[in-house]
Amino acid sequence: GNIILRNVLKAGFKGPVYPINPSGHEILGIPSHRRLTDVPGEVDLAMIVIPKPAVKDAIRDCAAKGVRAVILCTGGYADAGEKGASEQDVIARLARESGFRLMGPNSIGVINPAVGLATSIVGLEPIMQGGVALVGQSGVFSSGWGRWIAQSRPFGVSKIACIGNKADVDESDLLEYLAHDGNTTTIGLYLEGVACGERFVRAAARACRRKPVVVLKSGRTEAGARAIASHTGSLAGSDEVFDAVCRRTGLVRVHDSEAFFDTLSAFESLPLPRGNRLGVLSITGMGCVVATDACDEYGLRLPALTRPTLRRIREVIPPWAPVRNPIDIWSAVEQHGAAATMRRIAECMLGQANIDAVLMIFVLMPESIFDIQETFADILKAHPEKPVLVAAYGGTQREVAHVQDGFRGLGIPCYPTPERAIYALSRMVAYGRFCGRTSRRGA
Amino acid sequence: GNIILRNVLKAGFKGPVYPINPSGHEILGIPSHRRLTDVPGEVDLAMIVIPKPAVKDAIRDCAAKGVRAVILCTGGYADAGEKGASEQDVIARLARESGFRLMGPNSIGVINPAVGLATSIVGLEPIMQGGVALVGQSGVFSSGWGRWIAQSRPFGVSKIACIGNKADVDESDLLEYLAHDGNTTTIGLYLEGVACGERFVRAAARACRRKPVVVLKSGRTEAGARAIASHTGSLAGSDEVFDAVCRRTGLVRVHDSEAFFDTLSAFESLPLPRGNRLGVLSITGMGCVVATDACDEYGLRLPALTRPTLRRIREVIPPWAPVRNPIDIWSAVEQHGAAATMRRIAECMLGQANIDAVLMIFVLMPESIFDIQETFADILKAHPEKPVLVAAYGGTQREVAHVQDGFRGLGIPCYPTPERAIYALSRMVAYGRFCGRTSRRGA
Repeated sequence: GNIILRNVLKAGFKGPVYPINPSGHEILGIPSHRRLTDVPGEVDLAMIVIPKPAVKDAIRDCAAKGVRAVILCTGGYADAGEKGASEQDVIARLARESGFRLMGPNSIGVINPAVGLATSIVGLEPIMQGGVALVGQSGVFSSGWGRWIAQSRPFGVSKIACIGNKADVDESDLLEYLAHDGNTTTIGLYLEGVACGERFVRAAARACRRKPVVVLKSGRTEAGARAIASHTGSLAGSDEVFDAVCRRTGLVRVHDSEAFFDTLSAFESLPLPRGNRLGVLSITGMGCVVATDACDEYGLRLPALTRPTLRRIREVIPPWAPVRNPIDIWSAVEQHGAAATMRRIAECMLGQANIDAVLMIFVLMPESIFDIQETFADILKAHPEKPVLVAAYGGTQREVAHVQDGFRGLGIPCYPTPERAIYALSRMVAYGRFCGRTSRRGA
Repeated sequence: GNIILRNVLKAGFKGPVYPINPSGHEILGIPSHRRLTDVPGEVDLAMIVIPKPAVKDAIRDCAAKGVRAVILCTGGYADAGEKGASEQDVIARLARESGFRLMGPNSIGVINPAVGLATSIVGLEPIMQGGVALVGQSGVFSSGWGRWIAQSRPFGVSKIACIGNKADVDESDLLEYLAHDGNTTTIGLYLEGVACGERFVRAAARACRRKPVVVLKSGRTEAGARAIASHTGSLAGSDEVFDAVCRRTGLVRVHDSEAFFDTLSAFESLPLPRGNRLGVLSITGMGCVVATDACDEYGLRLPALTRPTLRRIREVIPPWAPVRNPIDIWSAVEQHGAAATMRRIAECMLGQANIDAVLMIFVLMPESIFDIQETFADILKAHPEKPVLVAAYGGTQREVAHVQDGFRGLGIPCYPTPERAIYALSRMVAYGRFCGRTSRRGA
């Protein structure tokens, strides 16, 4: 409870906050009340973080006080077997009868940077405001990953919701809400199961028509599905059915948490590509080979360079070195330096009409510490319709941070390998095709 | 050339170093010679980093001087098409006739921390000595990744060799050498193609009988195989054939650079598991679900907890919370703290006879900053035959570094997701079975 209060204060919540505690003492300098019903003003949201035996009374107090929404953090309900599940039903009925919405049980609540709300039970620094909404059937999004997002800023956040056991508020409610939320441009869902299949399909289809929805669904295997029952009490359902739902509704499915964040970063910062045709320049030949494999695997094409592009690139590449797509630019980097070479070749590729997106592959070294924004700002500005992605192999922490920060300032996501960049782009191509904004030529 | 000299000096090479430069001036305080033949003493190794037109003369000087080994950094040979390939043949013939071995062309050479040698053309800090040898058909292992390894120390290094176009020294030579190298305990190969198939199969089979060999082979797709021809002039060959070679010889194949380093860290720091039976404890329910999916996917089993293990774990887990494998330990962490809970439950799992390895899943937060070594040292020591791996979700850079450093001190690799940890362990199970040291029960 104490950490939640600290989080709310640190996040800068502007409304009144009332700590409730049987002791009635001041907490963090704020007068507390013994019971919710002692609070003088109206209460919009109550967060309940108390041992299970005391939960039912607290819920009744919420009803008596007329609160509009409750987050129930306490666990031991559907996540603890059949007996817990029936106790959960009782609480859900209480909420329904009293006319308030309930998030949880087994939920660490919500983060909403725009209003300075952060109910996590894990200490958080303020998270940068932005367009990504995360809905997770796990607290890790508003704890460990919340801490990571606050510091590393892979994207800005509109809302994070931890929906826990989903006794009342579930993924369909949030899809419906977030589809129309003006602050949200990209939605990320971590699901273990779906509360109501039909409603979810409808909500997903509607949301995907408005904005990309990236879904990480676990319980893909039979054993995994069984494990889910004991985490949040969800039924995982058949994985084949879920795959079919994704294809039909436009949900962008990914299979692990790294791919989840990689794909969200791409959607959030880049324009949808007009097609699947990628130009690749790499400071190492390995990058060219690996990118070619990955494009083949994920359905992207590598168009041949046209005569004018070849001619312009030739001006900086020594005559013996092959010029093609992907292009190994090391020989030119040795002559002209990394900044000038990458800028020139990226510019040439972006200028070729049948290239829809460009990937730049760095190998991080002292020579990578140049002014990223000054080098690339204007050539990117000249092609706002073409996504540009970066992959950066190796390097020291300082070099990684320099390149990531530089490109973040330009709205360009930076990945540790070409495969991860290409995978994220391929998810954008899939979504672009679903909504008819990305061409199917060359599919 | 200047950077190479700096690298050699920084790495602490003890033998004499002779800069060769037409100016004949002092370089970095070391007297230089106009030609190699002017050097007074014997020369074991010559590194050639000059424009291509001057290479042939330099090679002839090496022959005249009687050097025993040459690294040729200059590119533009087989990596630049047919004409370059025939020029490469001429140089290889010169080397053969003169009785010296040649690494390259298009090679940035070797790193050997034990003797303080580092010929990379990219600035490097000294790399921690250890058992991993890396052989890469790309310079990125002794440049960007060399810088990463020097700072992040995922493992210690015995040798790094960049074999480039492989005009003479190739992967089979190095496999034969490293199989018998007393400083090398684990070998990592990045290959684009194989110089001589028959010899490679023999060398791989012999090496795999002595130590694990992890292989990352690109050019897996047809398009990727074509891209390889222009990187190092290699023929990629059929991917199915390469897969069959791996199965027959015991090579441990992985498919991307993250899996390559993940798997090398596991082999280098952990004992081979006796079987494929994993115990998993996780601070988040999501970790349990994700780990279950990954075990199913990668062929690991999750044995049920036995009665004595259940009883001992029950002592710290509240009665309502399920106790099984994988186990969600959050409810106990709330009561007893992360350190005491993880220690106790890991100890219980390690003590169960039919559990061969344990994975601990953290969610990083301020509470993760406890003394890792003090907490886990003795329970790990009690089970030296069981690999223990860590996965840590999210957190700040400081939290990630604290947990990684703490576990590194105990010889425990730490991964960003459970999937990556489980994948690496599954590669160890595969190799252990190949050499008959890991049971096939439950396969």
